[in-house]
Amino acid sequence: MDLNADVGEGFGPWSLGDDRALLDIVTSANVACGFHAGDPDTMRRTCERAAARGVAVGAHVGYRDLNGFGRRFVDVAPGTLTAEVLYQLGGLDACARAAGTRVAYVKPHGALYRALVAHEAQADAVVDAVRAYDPALPVLGAPGAVWLKRAEVAGLPVRYEAFADRVYSALGTPADRERPGAVPHDPREVAARCVALAADGRVRTVDGRLLRMRVDSIRVHGGTPGAVAVARDVREALIGAGVPLGPFAGGLDRVRA
Amino acid sequence: MDLNADVGEGFGPWSLGDDRALLDIVTSANVACGFHAGDPDTMRRTCERAAARGVAVGAHVGYRDLNGFGRRFVDVAPGTLTAEVLYQLGGLDACARAAGTRVAYVKPHGALYRALVAHEAQADAVVDAVRAYDPALPVLGAPGAVWLKRAEVAGLPVRYEAFADRVYSALGTPADRERPGAVPHDPREVAARCVALAADGRVRTVDGRLLRMRVDSIRVHGGTPGAVAVARDVREALIGAGVPLGPFAGGLDRVRA
Amino acid sequence: MDLNADVGEGFGPWSLGDDRALLDIVTSANVACGFHAGDPDTMRRTCERAAARGVAVGAHVGYRDLNGFGRRFVDVAPGTLTAEVLYQLGGLDACARAAGTRVAYVKPHGALYRALVAHEAQADAVVDAVRAYDPALPVLGAPGAVWLKRAEVAGLPVRYEAFADRVYSALGTPADRERPGAVPHDPREVAARCVALAADGRVRTVDGRLLRMRVDSIRVHGGTPGAVAVARDVREALIGAGVPLGPFAGGLDRVRA
Amino acid sequence: MDLNADVGEGFGPWSLGDDRALLDIVTSANVACGFHAGDPDTMRRTCERAAARGVAVGAHVGYRDLNGFGRRFVDVAPGTLTAEVLYQLGGLDACARAAGTRVAYVKPHGALYRALVAHEAQADAVVDAVRAYDPALPVLGAPGAVWLKRAEVAGLPVRYEAFADRVYSALGTPADRERPGAVPHDPREVAARCVALAADGRVRTVDGRLLRMRVDSIRVHGGTPGAVAVARDVREALIGAGVPLGPFAGGLDRVRA
Repeated sequence: MDLNADVGEGFGPWSLGDDRALLDIVTSANVACGFHAGDPDTMRRTCERAAARGVAVGAHVGYRDLNGFGRRFVDVAPGTLTAEVLYQLGGLDACARAAGTRVAYVKPHGALYRALVAHEAQADAVVDAVRAYDPALPVLGAPGAVWLKRAEVAGLPVRYEAFADRVYSALGTPADRERPGAVPHDPREVAARCVALAADGRVRTVDGRLLRMRVDSIRVHGGTPGAVAVARDVREALIGAGVPLGPFAGGLDRVRA
Repeated sequence: MDLNADVGEGFGPWSLGDDRALLDIVTSANVACGFHAGDPDTMRRTCERAAARGVAVGAHVGYRDLNGFGRRFVDVAPGTLTAEVLYQLGGLDACARAAGTRVAYVKPHGALYRALVAHEAQADAVVDAVRAYDPALPVLGAPGAVWLKRAEVAGLPVRYEAFADRVYSALGTPADRERPGAVPHDPREVAARCVALAADGRVRTVDGRLLRMRVDSIRVHGGTPGAVAVARDVREALIGAGVPLGPFAGGLDRVRA
Repeated sequence: MDLNADVGEGFGPWSLGDDRALLDIVTSANVACGFHAGDPDTMRRTCERAAARGVAVGAHVGYRDLNGFGRRFVDVAPGTLTAEVLYQLGGLDACARAAGTRVAYVKPHGALYRALVAHEAQADAVVDAVRAYDPALPVLGAPGAVWLKRAEVAGLPVRYEAFADRVYSALGTPADRERPGAVPHDPREVAARCVALAADGRVRTVDGRLLRMRVDSIRVHGGTPGAVAVARDVREALIGAGVPLGPFAGGLDRVRA
Repeated sequence: MDLNADVGEGFGPWSLGDDRALLDIVTSANVACGFHAGDPDTMRRTCERAAARGVAVGAHVGYRDLNGFGRRFVDVAPGTLTAEVLYQLGGLDACARAAGTRVAYVKPHGALYRALVAHEAQADAVVDAVRAYDPALPVLGAPGAVWLKRAEVAGLPVRYEAFADRVYSALGTPADRERPGAVPHDPREVAARCVALAADGRVRTVDGRLLRMRVDSIRVHGGTPGAVAVARDVREALIGAGVPLGPFAGGLDRVRA
């Protein structure tokens, strides 16, 4: 099983989260590529730290919106979005290669992640960019997203993630946060759910039913000391349950370029 | 002989110069990489136009300074500069590859071009970036620049350019613009000097002596209709004198990736 | 009658349109404030040119999106938008005052202009900013826009503009461009319609009916030489028809600070 | 005596230092104006917090360099720098006025602060901007700086600051950090030196002599919890010594606009 988290989200004098701690926990690192966060210096140092730990580097591509941290939808033209994703991919890959690794997968960030669930023109635009860059490059996202369906049709390797900190509905989508039980607060419960997903490919829904999910990676967070502790618990519970940890297939062989 | 000029110097709604005309004249195009000019959309379209004409794409890397168009020295730390050049190189190369070509050489822009003549720490920083990206990637600049000496020591293929619109001193550097005769105004004189350089490897200095120069590329301009006409005259004079035109060695084989 | 147009839409090395020609034609200049275009240097020089001609300076406020020229909707939080409008207003006003004039009105640009027609939260956010800056500062926009209704309730002086190059429907909104006759192509027709609006307050709709419109300003364009010529025709037709030209009430007394 | 510190140095999702703690300690807040840090949202909220505590808002103007946090010299043309300072001043003042206060003084940041010590053209450029904005607006800096001499000639109210965390040479400039005793590490020593400066206008130099200094404000830091504690000690020592604290003359009356 793969564990992924967002890292490299600083810019210039600013940083976010505890990257060093996270990079000792995850097996895949979603590295910001300069458009919503991440200057080249930060990108290069983040790639070096990931490479030193055998952690796969993912291109965390986003809208061009530093001030909004890529959390606001931008109604960018598809052709422009394709070029922007190409540029971010190439820029990060150059930093990764200088660090002795390379970009192992692509995952959209923030508002782009959410938009690609349903926005067909932007979904195609991102798929076009990844395919033009490298048709063997895996893409990572949530089951059911339009862009992953398009990616599959386009022949890109598609990988699916589940969120460690969310409970799912029977539809396979995260249950509404307002619903009781949708956000597990006990770290042991979070860890136990991740073990169930990784070991059995099944997890209990918010309604108490068992849901079968194909999961290639589990997403954890690192924004706060508490979140890092939860992520560490997930890692240890998986190891304790005998689940081997490592970058997902197609990503692994890219860690050492 | 190779002819190079700056293209792709727009950003968002803005453009500079007549790129379409220039791309019919030159054999190498210095394409802005997003830091002093050039958004990804512009970069991608510029690469497509260059590829369609068999024109080599060069990475015109610059300081991070859109507002100043990279014409102001920035006292950036060497490690940061290395990462910034890597990022620009990778970003442009991704656009180039999507257009069926790839980055064929690296040439610094504006204040960075001038700084690298003598600034040792920044010179090393840029050489480190190019070598980390691809140790077989040629670099293009003016004879005598510190960064090209470092590039040679580092094993990078080094290519030299002369300026079509300048007369040189006996030292091999452009004569001071204030000096009479330092800036040739007659397009026929400009063209004749380029033919001398390309056919004989020799050109008359501002003092009237003959100077031997190794020149792999001649730089022309395209900022005004007059400049484009001069560039066209240079091209036609070279062809008329039987000088074969094309990207310089090491660049040529990268045009079709 | 007042004539307004967009000016100061350059950034760094780039410019758009023929500002010098336009500033000899219009009586109010919508000056970009640095977020979708317009660096401070450009802003200051534009204010100086406007002041020298007695042209009123309007704050052409936009989304923070240089690359997209403010033409893309940004889902910015209302509180953030209020602060962004305040900042743009204050920044331009400082340049205007250094040029011996001051900001005489506020007009949104591009996607913000379109959003404020119906987006209530952003409408309130912009009204809040203008009122906090100066409750006597006029706002300029299209009749019927939500933000102007809110501005009226808030006690701001509201001014209305008509587009010289559009024919209106009976609803008082520009007729769909696809409709025959919606975009007048004959400069004489454009000028005649402007004279009707200015002299009679009435103009013929796309259906041939007479529409009564309250118009405080007519918007012309300057993006192309043709557009500048049309704008000049409009100006001359108004003068020929005896319509006095000048900044609208509330704007006029701000031209000389 | 006045105490000043840098606040509002965040941008978008990022923050720096503990602004809330600092705003309970200082009497003047140097607020970043958007060019090296500080988006309008941050600026407005910082002004509101300062206003709520009766803390004077200073315009902490810097070079246009978010990525470098304004810590790198930029060889900007004087006319451009004047416009950039005007824009930052006006932008912050709009946020300040919306918060019920106004800009009470101007202090340059980082590399601009250092450049203005000796760079005559940039010194004049900044003085021109402040004078054009408001000839009664105080400027704050280190004794001996060229720009303060020019400001004095230009008639601007000039205020001087000392650094709480530095020991001075007999020349009135901070002693070289490498010199033994140049950087006091004991918080009690820092506080005692500030009391001497504030109560007697004299302080012991690195050579052990007594130096007379005119000091209108003492600069403290807030980047780390330790620095905040030192700043709090300085405040309490001054109060304990009977030194009245408050914004310096010319600043005080601007706190309540």
